[in-house]
Amino acid sequence: MSASLEPRRPFFLDCDTGIDDALALGYLLASDTVDLVGIGTVSGNVSAERGARNTLDLLELSGRADIPVAIGNAEPQRGTFDGGALHVHGANGIGDVLLPESATPVVDETAAELLVRMAREYAGELHLVAIGPLTNIAEALRLEPQLTTLVKTVTIMGGAAMAPGNITPVAEANIGNDADAAAEVLAADWFVTLVPLDVTISHRFEESDQRALVESEQTVPVALGQMLDFYFDFYVGTYGERASALHDPLAAAIAVGDIALKSAPVVSVLVDDTDGPGRGQTICDLRGYLVGFPEQPGAHCRVVLSLEQDFAPTLLAALLTL
Amino acid sequence: MSASLEPRRPFFLDCDTGIDDALALGYLLASDTVDLVGIGTVSGNVSAERGARNTLDLLELSGRADIPVAIGNAEPQRGTFDGGALHVHGANGIGDVLLPESATPVVDETAAELLVRMAREYAGELHLVAIGPLTNIAEALRLEPQLTTLVKTVTIMGGAAMAPGNITPVAEANIGNDADAAAEVLAADWFVTLVPLDVTISHRFEESDQRALVESEQTVPVALGQMLDFYFDFYVGTYGERASALHDPLAAAIAVGDIALKSAPVVSVLVDDTDGPGRGQTICDLRGYLVGFPEQPGAHCRVVLSLEQDFAPTLLAALLTL
Repeated sequence: MSASLEPRRPFFLDCDTGIDDALALGYLLASDTVDLVGIGTVSGNVSAERGARNTLDLLELSGRADIPVAIGNAEPQRGTFDGGALHVHGANGIGDVLLPESATPVVDETAAELLVRMAREYAGELHLVAIGPLTNIAEALRLEPQLTTLVKTVTIMGGAAMAPGNITPVAEANIGNDADAAAEVLAADWFVTLVPLDVTISHRFEESDQRALVESEQTVPVALGQMLDFYFDFYVGTYGERASALHDPLAAAIAVGDIALKSAPVVSVLVDDTDGPGRGQTICDLRGYLVGFPEQPGAHCRVVLSLEQDFAPTLLAALLTL
Repeated sequence: MSASLEPRRPFFLDCDTGIDDALALGYLLASDTVDLVGIGTVSGNVSAERGARNTLDLLELSGRADIPVAIGNAEPQRGTFDGGALHVHGANGIGDVLLPESATPVVDETAAELLVRMAREYAGELHLVAIGPLTNIAEALRLEPQLTTLVKTVTIMGGAAMAPGNITPVAEANIGNDADAAAEVLAADWFVTLVPLDVTISHRFEESDQRALVESEQTVPVALGQMLDFYFDFYVGTYGERASALHDPLAAAIAVGDIALKSAPVVSVLVDDTDGPGRGQTICDLRGYLVGFPEQPGAHCRVVLSLEQDFAPTLLAALLTL
């Protein structure tokens, strides 16, 4: 990306790396307006520990081993981690691509502790991007109730508003894998931008994008392109052809402010944390959808439903700079 | 409608009359392939008793006072009737239009008893159309577990699949007003055609349709057109202009077989009967929506999502024959 006169802004990423998490991380590393000051991992696509391994290795490969990585919660608030979505992301979470192992250790704090520390250090300035289950974020809110004001923006990849879910008919994986934590985070007194399946499923990498990555002369784009091979296989069941949704990188790009939103109403959102069939659903009050979503007093969640432009070219261009 | 060589088939209507119920009743009375053999009422848009009053008066006006009407359940399975949607349908349920009062009494059976009796009398032939809360239908299933085989087809106006609900962000009124009954009816071992808000909200009467009704020289179309005046006012909040959704008459027309369906996948459907925020939602498994809905073994609910053609002209033409 071209050099910017804008000062870099501090970002914190909470993730479960994961192929599309790797793309999101790449997007943030490529942005010249982002200063990635810390990363936490959580069990989701893979275990929190495996996610940290993948994150450290990707940072090393990108020459950014200086960014602190903290392992977060291995288990959701209730129940136990289900072992991850290995059929989606591969046994190692990054499409079975083998990266050189980074020698950098994780920091000696939990992900929630690191987030709270960074939120205090960059009080009022930190941008939080959460692209895994919200276990660590809920824990951080309990550790530091002032987090809601310390953090400047919160962007979450998760949920399904009108679109079907992906782990149940109504639940998306990040929310559904820790519905209790998600309910707390969405109920907290801060403004959240939610990037649900409704919009992420409509923005895809195709074979040509993957080819452009693997044909790069840089190691990071090549590695990311290789990971996509596994991901594309999974998405045949969703799209009927090899392609991949751009869930996590889209949330990252929206957090950075690079994306023009088309439909993104601010509406009441709560998470179904019952043990019923709706568990893990993000219940968004979209009843005003035919009349341009009249204002809902007290609502503090912006639900991104569509973009002005295709996101794939923006993402590809960013990743090719790595 | 033109005379048909097809023999008339027995239909049973369960309703909560209601302005759009009145349109549905009119549609069934207008069809020359339908023999309406009984009607039950249930509390929903109005009380079961008020619904029976409106139904009897409409039948009298249509010269069909011979059709038996039974009052069904005044209360949902749990909780109490909320008093109805008088802001939608008017204080008397039919847009405050005053019809001549029929002298014909209701029959001396409950709606569930009348339905069971007719299902036995027309064993294997009865078409059931339910356009109110499903309290009576669930009761009939308990009275006669063989109802699932005695009835030939079941068509229900209710639910919201991907579209937002209308009484909560996810619940539609017919299902949400008795979620427990709906859960039983959708779980029963029969094939159900569900006509949810997704499709009904897309088919509307406009001012021109209403004008055509009130300018008719027949009393029934005029009365129906007058009722729409109230209904149109309510729908300004939904559509941003005076118009009305055609919820109940569309279900009736689909039951009769008059409508070409465009997207109507057979998928797993269950009703959220928890006390959580998703209560009353029809949870339809539409995860295969991008690949033409692969077959779901055991699924026995057809969810109508779209039609091949606009329904309003068909409905208007039918009502003008009354």
